[in-house]
Amino acid sequence: MSYNLLKGKKGIIFGALDNKSIAWKVAEKAHAEGAVFTLSNTPTAQRFGMLSELAEKTNSEIILADATSVADLTNVFNKSMEILGGKVDFVLHSIGMSLNVRKKRVYNDLDYNFLNKTLDISAVSFHKMLQVAFKLNAINDWGSVVALSYIAAQRTHYGYNDMADAKALLESIARSFGYIYGRERKIRVNTISQSPTRTTAGSGVKGVEGLIDFTDRMSPLGNADADECADYCLVLFSDLTKKVTMQNLYHDGGFSNMGMSQRAMTMYNKSLDLPDDIIP
Amino acid sequence: MSYNLLKGKKGIIFGALDNKSIAWKVAEKAHAEGAVFTLSNTPTAQRFGMLSELAEKTNSEIILADATSVADLTNVFNKSMEILGGKVDFVLHSIGMSLNVRKKRVYNDLDYNFLNKTLDISAVSFHKMLQVAFKLNAINDWGSVVALSYIAAQRTHYGYNDMADAKALLESIARSFGYIYGRERKIRVNTISQSPTRTTAGSGVKGVEGLIDFTDRMSPLGNADADECADYCLVLFSDLTKKVTMQNLYHDGGFSNMGMSQRAMTMYNKSLDLPDDIIP
Amino acid sequence: MSYNLLKGKKGIIFGALDNKSIAWKVAEKAHAEGAVFTLSNTPTAQRFGMLSELAEKTNSEIILADATSVADLTNVFNKSMEILGGKVDFVLHSIGMSLNVRKKRVYNDLDYNFLNKTLDISAVSFHKMLQVAFKLNAINDWGSVVALSYIAAQRTHYGYNDMADAKALLESIARSFGYIYGRERKIRVNTISQSPTRTTAGSGVKGVEGLIDFTDRMSPLGNADADECADYCLVLFSDLTKKVTMQNLYHDGGFSNMGMSQRAMTMYNKSLDLPDDIIP
Amino acid sequence: MSYNLLKGKKGIIFGALDNKSIAWKVAEKAHAEGAVFTLSNTPTAQRFGMLSELAEKTNSEIILADATSVADLTNVFNKSMEILGGKVDFVLHSIGMSLNVRKKRVYNDLDYNFLNKTLDISAVSFHKMLQVAFKLNAINDWGSVVALSYIAAQRTHYGYNDMADAKALLESIARSFGYIYGRERKIRVNTISQSPTRTTAGSGVKGVEGLIDFTDRMSPLGNADADECADYCLVLFSDLTKKVTMQNLYHDGGFSNMGMSQRAMTMYNKSLDLPDDIIP
Repeated sequence: MSYNLLKGKKGIIFGALDNKSIAWKVAEKAHAEGAVFTLSNTPTAQRFGMLSELAEKTNSEIILADATSVADLTNVFNKSMEILGGKVDFVLHSIGMSLNVRKKRVYNDLDYNFLNKTLDISAVSFHKMLQVAFKLNAINDWGSVVALSYIAAQRTHYGYNDMADAKALLESIARSFGYIYGRERKIRVNTISQSPTRTTAGSGVKGVEGLIDFTDRMSPLGNADADECADYCLVLFSDLTKKVTMQNLYHDGGFSNMGMSQRAMTMYNKSLDLPDDIIP
Repeated sequence: MSYNLLKGKKGIIFGALDNKSIAWKVAEKAHAEGAVFTLSNTPTAQRFGMLSELAEKTNSEIILADATSVADLTNVFNKSMEILGGKVDFVLHSIGMSLNVRKKRVYNDLDYNFLNKTLDISAVSFHKMLQVAFKLNAINDWGSVVALSYIAAQRTHYGYNDMADAKALLESIARSFGYIYGRERKIRVNTISQSPTRTTAGSGVKGVEGLIDFTDRMSPLGNADADECADYCLVLFSDLTKKVTMQNLYHDGGFSNMGMSQRAMTMYNKSLDLPDDIIP
Repeated sequence: MSYNLLKGKKGIIFGALDNKSIAWKVAEKAHAEGAVFTLSNTPTAQRFGMLSELAEKTNSEIILADATSVADLTNVFNKSMEILGGKVDFVLHSIGMSLNVRKKRVYNDLDYNFLNKTLDISAVSFHKMLQVAFKLNAINDWGSVVALSYIAAQRTHYGYNDMADAKALLESIARSFGYIYGRERKIRVNTISQSPTRTTAGSGVKGVEGLIDFTDRMSPLGNADADECADYCLVLFSDLTKKVTMQNLYHDGGFSNMGMSQRAMTMYNKSLDLPDDIIP
Repeated sequence: MSYNLLKGKKGIIFGALDNKSIAWKVAEKAHAEGAVFTLSNTPTAQRFGMLSELAEKTNSEIILADATSVADLTNVFNKSMEILGGKVDFVLHSIGMSLNVRKKRVYNDLDYNFLNKTLDISAVSFHKMLQVAFKLNAINDWGSVVALSYIAAQRTHYGYNDMADAKALLESIARSFGYIYGRERKIRVNTISQSPTRTTAGSGVKGVEGLIDFTDRMSPLGNADADECADYCLVLFSDLTKKVTMQNLYHDGGFSNMGMSQRAMTMYNKSLDLPDDIIP
């Protein structure tokens, strides 16, 4: 089903890898809603992912870039304006990576070069993107920028490691630049804090299954999936949310405001060998 | 412009008074987006407002009710299902009133009967609405309920008085019932925390002009108006936000995450006779 | 061990029942730290609890009162000033009760008279206490008022029912009156959001054992107990926290900022029959 | 006045410069409360500040260090244990600096090398401190670590620039490491979010006067000063707050929970030429 919600809008989507990626779903749905856009990711991601399939499907061009490079980002915005015939209206940042997680350096034994990279790739890249766009005047007034975040930015999740700090930094950058971009160009900047989602990037994380089961049982509507997250991105790119900015918006079936649900408690009590009927 | 965002959806809109009301704008826009609905307000509101004009314009029926009366609310939901030919998909609660404010009882000299009324009309009415709907099974699965709130629920605003406490209670009810309604019927319940808005209900408040000027200068996008708030309501009623629940969503041009803006500081400094150029 | 932290200070402690009560521990510790105070609770509480033992132990007088009665509260403040020889420096509000919980009315089947009572006893009583004290000018400048709250005010806990809404209202009243009392008399008003605690009042709640086990495993320091909560109350009554006001302060071993801990996840995974070693 | 609150406790205080510094006041007061400690700052700070005066006054030794250097921090903890005769009980982190602010690079024209330094000095240094202490096992069980923050971490303040992002990162590190340190050693980690304070470090910031006036009028108790902040630090180092961890604690006279005060509104309205009597 389509509403022509993004009819006539131009955009850039960073971070689509394969058909499990949230960015991938955003591209498919933005296309269906009438938007045109470019896709950007790293050369490695293109090699291992299915980016060209997505480009074909959505009639988009791919512009390879390292999102920590100001030069590369400048190229992405310039090329995109050239290809799309003008400034863009929306930008999606769906980028994150931690070498500490990958190399199994726990949080009390971080490698500080890795930490630096985590922050640069997962958070500072968002500032670079915004600053490049600002300097090139590459986004139309009343445009919309969204980055994807996770609740570990507020509440510590065992094993999420330095990505939690990166997400906190990312959300702060959204607020700080949201103020500037709002004041100067009426452009909004928000983050969506999404349920834990089974993506190829995330699937390497061992033991994530237990967490996903827990959050699903805690959330009255269950976990939000990638498809639904893409819908929420569209809403934020549309003209129906013009005064929403500097926000971190939970898209999580209610998880963020739950302390304990009946379903999760029942499950937890099993591990305690407590009878079901004594649950409050 | 219309997207058919609410095509085929049925709803109930509580609290439209005249063409400055947020609920009025929601009705107009929901109509344009393809929804059908009933309108509800008190007999007094109908007498002093322009409700019948709205009903005609949107091809809706009016069902008078005191929102603190379970019997009246039961009637509203029953009649609405009858008129609309089935369960509803969305409900708007835009109701609030404080006799302490009206009678100029300051917060350290509250009349407790008035406080009781403030809480009943502005907050408990929302629980009654939800409980009545729940018992009548009057809302379709994946439906959406929205109530309007204000940031004074979190941060004290001089003069907002016991309405601040009522809004805090309202937002808590949204979370508490959002859990139940999500778990049992996949129905979402949220509040929108809106910029100070010039409505007929609010215009009686003396001195609100200074506050509106301040929040407008603090907010990078300026204050959100009633029209824009209605857009945000539609988004929450639509199928694009199915996993958003139990949230209090700021719709305020960024105000909620601002500490101090250049524009507000410049203005404030005038009162201090500080030269403009020393502003940070 | 004693620091003479409250030497020369006078106070009123509402809500001590027996030696498991937080208010009881506050009384014992405030006595040890050099304070003098009166104790207040309902006639019923006195009958079923051990209040006179506490009064004897701490050399205090008991003033019976229904905390929802302005007349009774006026008597408590007047008598206390008489007994203690002047205005008080601190007040503790440790009062809460829900007939809906007791009578097993679930949240989607609330009795509204009971809800009214829940709000009146557990939240509005705090406003009444503050307004009475304000009018009688019964608290010294730079005095301190504390009420006890629970995280269900922010995050829904299955079974906590309308007490969650009452606690949200209570915390809002602390902010609203904290503004007035701070501005007018430099008196601070805060709430402490305490770990779930095994008290006589709470022990009737079925199934609370599972929740206490879960929060204990989630909290890096474990649940905070009544004794430790009393220490935190003393700190807030002392002269070392003179500029802390309108805050809701979590006293919970870190629970409020945890998303998932290793210990809780290990336990939860048992119920899923997931092997321990795949935990992230 | 002294309570012997820190009798027998050992600590390390990072960041005292001169007698306006919060860290300076913490040292003086910790000394008065019975603690022994070492002082650490950079060679430059020692040259331009009055650190040796403080060392003499409090009978402490100075250990120079660049807080971004793991080697230097290792030396500080090792030397401190040697000097103090054992592990420490408390650590204060009062360190922050932005070259972007100093060199007047606005937030939409950041130098990324400077940003990197801002984050390293003002936030990552805290992780390094904690990780070094953890690896050396340099803090006693139930010890306490505090870092100083500012509300710009949550709400954008014009001119605070990349320091806002650094503070957000700092607070996230406090949560993330607070979980680890709590779980493993029962050590608590918190941040204090302090009112804008006139320190030598801050006094270079142009136009800060208007902001300090505004926050003072917004806060029911007025701005908190360095002396009062030091009291709050002591409280967090004491044994009376053993279960408080992973928190960001506002010490600000109530500012954080104010939306608009009568005093600030009156002042603001002057700039609008609104008569005083129409204020709500």
